[in-house]
Amino acid sequence: MAGNTFGQLFRVTAFGESHGGAVGCVVDGCPSKLSISIDDIQKDLDRRRPGQSSITSPRKEEDKIEILSGIFEGKTTGTPILLLAKNKDMKPEDYGKLKDLYRPSHADLTYEVKYGIRDWRGGGRSSARVTLAYVAAGAIAKKYLKEKLGIEFLIQIEQIGGIKIKTVQEMTKLIETIKNEGDSVGGTICGVVKNVPIGLGEPVFDKLSADLAKAMFSINAVKGFEIGSGFNGTKMRGSDHNDSFFVDSDNKIRTKTNFSGGIQGGISNGEDILFRVGFKPVATIRKRQETVDKNKKTVVLEASGRHDPCVLPRAVPIVEAMAAITIMDHYLRHKAQNL
Amino acid sequence: MAGNTFGQLFRVTAFGESHGGAVGCVVDGCPSKLSISIDDIQKDLDRRRPGQSSITSPRKEEDKIEILSGIFEGKTTGTPILLLAKNKDMKPEDYGKLKDLYRPSHADLTYEVKYGIRDWRGGGRSSARVTLAYVAAGAIAKKYLKEKLGIEFLIQIEQIGGIKIKTVQEMTKLIETIKNEGDSVGGTICGVVKNVPIGLGEPVFDKLSADLAKAMFSINAVKGFEIGSGFNGTKMRGSDHNDSFFVDSDNKIRTKTNFSGGIQGGISNGEDILFRVGFKPVATIRKRQETVDKNKKTVVLEASGRHDPCVLPRAVPIVEAMAAITIMDHYLRHKAQNL
Amino acid sequence: MAGNTFGQLFRVTAFGESHGGAVGCVVDGCPSKLSISIDDIQKDLDRRRPGQSSITSPRKEEDKIEILSGIFEGKTTGTPILLLAKNKDMKPEDYGKLKDLYRPSHADLTYEVKYGIRDWRGGGRSSARVTLAYVAAGAIAKKYLKEKLGIEFLIQIEQIGGIKIKTVQEMTKLIETIKNEGDSVGGTICGVVKNVPIGLGEPVFDKLSADLAKAMFSINAVKGFEIGSGFNGTKMRGSDHNDSFFVDSDNKIRTKTNFSGGIQGGISNGEDILFRVGFKPVATIRKRQETVDKNKKTVVLEASGRHDPCVLPRAVPIVEAMAAITIMDHYLRHKAQNL
Amino acid sequence: MAGNTFGQLFRVTAFGESHGGAVGCVVDGCPSKLSISIDDIQKDLDRRRPGQSSITSPRKEEDKIEILSGIFEGKTTGTPILLLAKNKDMKPEDYGKLKDLYRPSHADLTYEVKYGIRDWRGGGRSSARVTLAYVAAGAIAKKYLKEKLGIEFLIQIEQIGGIKIKTVQEMTKLIETIKNEGDSVGGTICGVVKNVPIGLGEPVFDKLSADLAKAMFSINAVKGFEIGSGFNGTKMRGSDHNDSFFVDSDNKIRTKTNFSGGIQGGISNGEDILFRVGFKPVATIRKRQETVDKNKKTVVLEASGRHDPCVLPRAVPIVEAMAAITIMDHYLRHKAQNL
Repeated sequence: MAGNTFGQLFRVTAFGESHGGAVGCVVDGCPSKLSISIDDIQKDLDRRRPGQSSITSPRKEEDKIEILSGIFEGKTTGTPILLLAKNKDMKPEDYGKLKDLYRPSHADLTYEVKYGIRDWRGGGRSSARVTLAYVAAGAIAKKYLKEKLGIEFLIQIEQIGGIKIKTVQEMTKLIETIKNEGDSVGGTICGVVKNVPIGLGEPVFDKLSADLAKAMFSINAVKGFEIGSGFNGTKMRGSDHNDSFFVDSDNKIRTKTNFSGGIQGGISNGEDILFRVGFKPVATIRKRQETVDKNKKTVVLEASGRHDPCVLPRAVPIVEAMAAITIMDHYLRHKAQNL
Repeated sequence: MAGNTFGQLFRVTAFGESHGGAVGCVVDGCPSKLSISIDDIQKDLDRRRPGQSSITSPRKEEDKIEILSGIFEGKTTGTPILLLAKNKDMKPEDYGKLKDLYRPSHADLTYEVKYGIRDWRGGGRSSARVTLAYVAAGAIAKKYLKEKLGIEFLIQIEQIGGIKIKTVQEMTKLIETIKNEGDSVGGTICGVVKNVPIGLGEPVFDKLSADLAKAMFSINAVKGFEIGSGFNGTKMRGSDHNDSFFVDSDNKIRTKTNFSGGIQGGISNGEDILFRVGFKPVATIRKRQETVDKNKKTVVLEASGRHDPCVLPRAVPIVEAMAAITIMDHYLRHKAQNL
Repeated sequence: MAGNTFGQLFRVTAFGESHGGAVGCVVDGCPSKLSISIDDIQKDLDRRRPGQSSITSPRKEEDKIEILSGIFEGKTTGTPILLLAKNKDMKPEDYGKLKDLYRPSHADLTYEVKYGIRDWRGGGRSSARVTLAYVAAGAIAKKYLKEKLGIEFLIQIEQIGGIKIKTVQEMTKLIETIKNEGDSVGGTICGVVKNVPIGLGEPVFDKLSADLAKAMFSINAVKGFEIGSGFNGTKMRGSDHNDSFFVDSDNKIRTKTNFSGGIQGGISNGEDILFRVGFKPVATIRKRQETVDKNKKTVVLEASGRHDPCVLPRAVPIVEAMAAITIMDHYLRHKAQNL
Repeated sequence: MAGNTFGQLFRVTAFGESHGGAVGCVVDGCPSKLSISIDDIQKDLDRRRPGQSSITSPRKEEDKIEILSGIFEGKTTGTPILLLAKNKDMKPEDYGKLKDLYRPSHADLTYEVKYGIRDWRGGGRSSARVTLAYVAAGAIAKKYLKEKLGIEFLIQIEQIGGIKIKTVQEMTKLIETIKNEGDSVGGTICGVVKNVPIGLGEPVFDKLSADLAKAMFSINAVKGFEIGSGFNGTKMRGSDHNDSFFVDSDNKIRTKTNFSGGIQGGISNGEDILFRVGFKPVATIRKRQETVDKNKKTVVLEASGRHDPCVLPRAVPIVEAMAAITIMDHYLRHKAQNL
């Protein structure tokens, strides 16, 4: 129960530190006979990889994924799938001076008190690099859900630093400005999941909404999560907020509005699943900051490692992956009991 | 994995339907030798009970809790604790006419499609009545956390229908107005948890923030959750948002601000844990609504059951309970590996 | 993880002490629309109930089961099923003198050291009475497996005190003799499970054989478990022990022998599942025994509570129940991933 | 729940096929600050490695373990530990002709029916090679238990093919004879675990005996398991079998005999834990055997791969490892709730 496994039936057990030997995960419980190639996974990893543009960290990890078990002649066999990326381009010397101090709003202090020991190289296990495992596992879930159920994930950046994003150019310019100031910025990502069948999610503790919330809060820097109308819905009257049922032209029961965000009583109702995820600004900034060290002395910190001024562009595939893993797990759970 | 158990080491397995024989839960994993009386639990249950005032449902359940195992001579023995409240004052005839139709924004349709069968009496398992189990289990967690670690929970209503709440009178008046309109309204609850030691929470998938999010989304009608700065934080710059460390007059490392909401890298950092929970307006309203029935015919629904126009007043102890259960579970997990 | 839940998808969470309020369990994950009546469960409980004959404990518990949730109009709804029997005919005064001493080969000492507190009335949680919950949950599993898959359980006593049992009369006489000596005796039960489809069981850690072993060792007094050829097979050569495949007259692949006991590589192969369970003699005897008390003083113990001289007759439905729960759980697990 | 994880708090998630990329495991939940070197693990792996003598398979795997996460500067950090051995010396061509047939008493048929696909190279996931992961994880558990609690594991071969083993020479000669006959043989291993503190094990479903049983049945070829007096105890009277308590010269409560095998009511009582494990003869033999293929045709099988005529010599460290993992897990569980 040390918290490195996500899911009940589609189980992702992640491992790895930023500057250790490798990061990755074991995916257990995947149905057999699903075609999976390195490319299926690599193309999503490439979307989260740093070093892609002027607005992401220049760390040039290749993030080259290896599949070391569970696939035979291009197909899943039903046995655990080991997905692993070796760590390269490691510059622990960048971090040597950070080893005795606690960076503000990072996990340095909490890890050290919790475990009494800390791999300080690049944030160790708290590094964003561990989300590579989420994306790799998510690629498998997405492929299954797409082929089997036609489920699609549309995940996009909604606002950065409070500014609604309309174009990539606009976003890039905004982030560059902040980067040049030596600062960082947060934002929100919104997600739509289409074609989820009615019936996914358990009604009491493991509501689909609850597990999506947990999934998103498993991503570093997430501070808020909403389903459907979210916090705006808290200001509404029931008569406006209720999603009336009607029968559509295909003779299917649908809702006229979707304030529920596709989930009612914790269970998917067949409408689009709608959610929003809020990310705080990246904690690492180039600007000088005061903090304290192990000896409780005040020190001044000026970061020089390679970091993103804004996590949002790289977070899109991570959000997508966690949504896919969650829905995949609930599909298998529903199948076990009810299909 | 049918989703009726919450927690890994402090495990709450809930059961019961609104109009079945009983609702309650089994609490497994509670440390032994904790003094627990019926009163410890009953006093919290009384806070969530309907029928207390003009603004809550007139259903007059006594919610009389029975403890049927796990306590001997007033103390926990380390064995599972069965907490149970018999269902009385049941008026299933109130619901008979609802049996064939799907109430808007309720779980009627999703349950029926998921399971192919539905206990339609009072919402069955999707009834708010099941949260009685949350509160009963939470009372035990709260007592342990208070006695052992001095942890305190301050949970209160922040806004209702978009209006900040300053006094109970104000709130009562607002809800009465809405009730008279035959409508319902949502709102937000904010929570502060004080004296949580550094080190609770698992760093990757089972972050303390992630499990709090899941806990809150396990409550009916929850549509949003935030930790610390939440969605507001998404608009900030890192240089403003970072919580600088300093050494306080007791020689303890603290943070000057608390945008992190007491959790860094998924682990409690010793500051107050701050969170917000958003509730949608109650789905049951007296106003006429169109919906469809099993035969896909349009029908008009006029609710006559006993319901709350606003879930917030009764949700306060539920939020408190789920926060306590989550923190209790993480305390035991931390103890297992690290203490 | 306090060990009161068995199963992953068909989950039985048991509770209760011999002389507390009630014993029973919550069954979570049962598929919906299964017809279950009180009688379906009661008839198995009656088989394990004490007070039935000259050779079982005269304790006259009615073991009257109540179903308090999860069943609606005679059918499972997919929500948790609470099964509960109130404790009656309790004579804690029988046990008062046992409160400060440790009965040989009982759990008195281990509970007291583990938890620092012990419900000494009738053995508390270590009482055989808790197996009532196993039987109640097993009755549901058996019914599902029978209706859905045609699976049958044939469980019988093989030997008592080393003597092969051919007739009930013979057995009764043997146990009566031992009872009259104020002594107790052990024995073995063998089980055959018929019509298990090919494919149940997970191949590495959760082999069907491994989970059956665990299930049987969850029953008090069990000291040994064998699958198929068991310990006898350890003396054989591979050329004799291997179960050759052949194609039968129905064009099905079968094995000529069944030393494997119906499980190969941890997975059912469609042949009868064959197992044996060994029970030690009951620890409570009327004969005088020396032991020690809390103050580490030697004391003489002469039991006067109501006990069975031999656990075997009442253990048959318990073994059957645990086998059914295990197979049910693995059927749902297999269904989730592979069907 | 696909069965590749063992343990609740000390969790071993295994992966890998005989002829895939690698075999190994992720160990999650290990306490931090435990010194672990490659040597600590490698020395146990060397004990289970094939190719060591005339009586084990000549496959010359180096079984070179790599630690790719969770260890920093020679110490565990509390994060997941990835242990991995690349597969080398693979000769899948040895197995090509086995691809379409079902070897007697192997898992070929059951895997194929369960998953609809099968990695036939060297038995795939059902290969004994996967137990490398058990041994690697067990080495960590053993080290912790030894350093922290002084726990020792004494595991040895008791009999082979029904012949009690007194010397290694004797055993080697026996196995060589059988090997020359092109046959295989089974046997039993007995284990003693010393210095286990009182209190490990959960009293109802997760009895220490039950989890040890499950652990041993997780090893390929295991057909029987006994605790303490085992099946012999089933023939005894209670007055002989009961372990009387007394106070020893160190003023500790002990038992005069140990028919209980160190576990009472599912919980360790401080005496030596005693158990026996029965292994069937290896299924792969050189002798000709009839079997059937995918097309349900009878075929003759003459094995030519590299196999052990007797699994016992290599099984000793595997039994030791599974015992250590089980006790480690229960120690952490006990610590969480009770220490």
